[in-house]
Amino acid sequence: MNNTNYGVVLVTAGSPQEAEAIATSLVASKLAACVNILPIQSVYTWQGEINQEQEWQLLIKTDLAQFSNLEAKIRELHSYEVPEIIAIPILAGSQSYLDWISASVK
Amino acid sequence: MNNTNYGVVLVTAGSPQEAEAIATSLVASKLAACVNILPIQSVYTWQGEINQEQEWQLLIKTDLAQFSNLEAKIRELHSYEVPEIIAIPILAGSQSYLDWISASVK
Amino acid sequence: MNNTNYGVVLVTAGSPQEAEAIATSLVASKLAACVNILPIQSVYTWQGEINQEQEWQLLIKTDLAQFSNLEAKIRELHSYEVPEIIAIPILAGSQSYLDWISASVK
Repeated sequence: MNNTNYGVVLVTAGSPQEAEAIATSLVASKLAACVNILPIQSVYTWQGEINQEQEWQLLIKTDLAQFSNLEAKIRELHSYEVPEIIAIPILAGSQSYLDWISASVK
Repeated sequence: MNNTNYGVVLVTAGSPQEAEAIATSLVASKLAACVNILPIQSVYTWQGEINQEQEWQLLIKTDLAQFSNLEAKIRELHSYEVPEIIAIPILAGSQSYLDWISASVK
Repeated sequence: MNNTNYGVVLVTAGSPQEAEAIATSLVASKLAACVNILPIQSVYTWQGEINQEQEWQLLIKTDLAQFSNLEAKIRELHSYEVPEIIAIPILAGSQSYLDWISASVK
């Protein structure tokens, strides 16, 4: 199985409002077909200190041909200096759903 | 690192009952070793309208040799016309866990 | 797009305390840049019985060159006999975030 050109892009946001604003903007500008949002507890280091904070994980289902446009839009909207923007490949999928992503992402 | 033949299949469901029914059926019919369910907030377009709804994300840990059987079973059970059914590759894993997936999926 | 050498490692834990202890240890020992924790409902078979339990999913963002050290540390800390430890590839990402992972993982 080779990767399709579709993927799930992961982004973390600092508040539910920020998560929803980014999700709605990506879907409205046809950079994502669907964005799922869920609360998470994050543990990470920043400038040598271990931090533990509530964040919101976005799962952005999209066509990865749009990745650089997607990244630019997220950077424009995001409050973090270095936001998480990472793409996971979709290896296979039901054709009708993948076609729906293609129809929703321009 | 090359992909193993294992993967995580993502499906969204419209209610916790639907999520649990799909999860239990996949595990009972040995199409999945483990299914994790979590509530999500989904933002997406459908027939030109932006929608925001609560859904439930399934993370289905399985052997991707079963993907087409898994897809058929999910379509049979799912209430959506175009359900999300997408497979993410597992690149590496602890051998005892991967062996457990092999033993659980037929 | 080829896989980067970065990835998201998925682990499930039996309690929030176990999830936090593993997350903090991985970040403190520079085996992970960031770990996100979320509650999940898990459906799985174990010794022929279908089980449904609350668990906690860890999403471990790291450099996969450290996968075997990461696996060893998780096994050392984990209460399960066969813990889930599976790596999902990151196919692309914003360069500043990937650089942050490199700086945080040794």
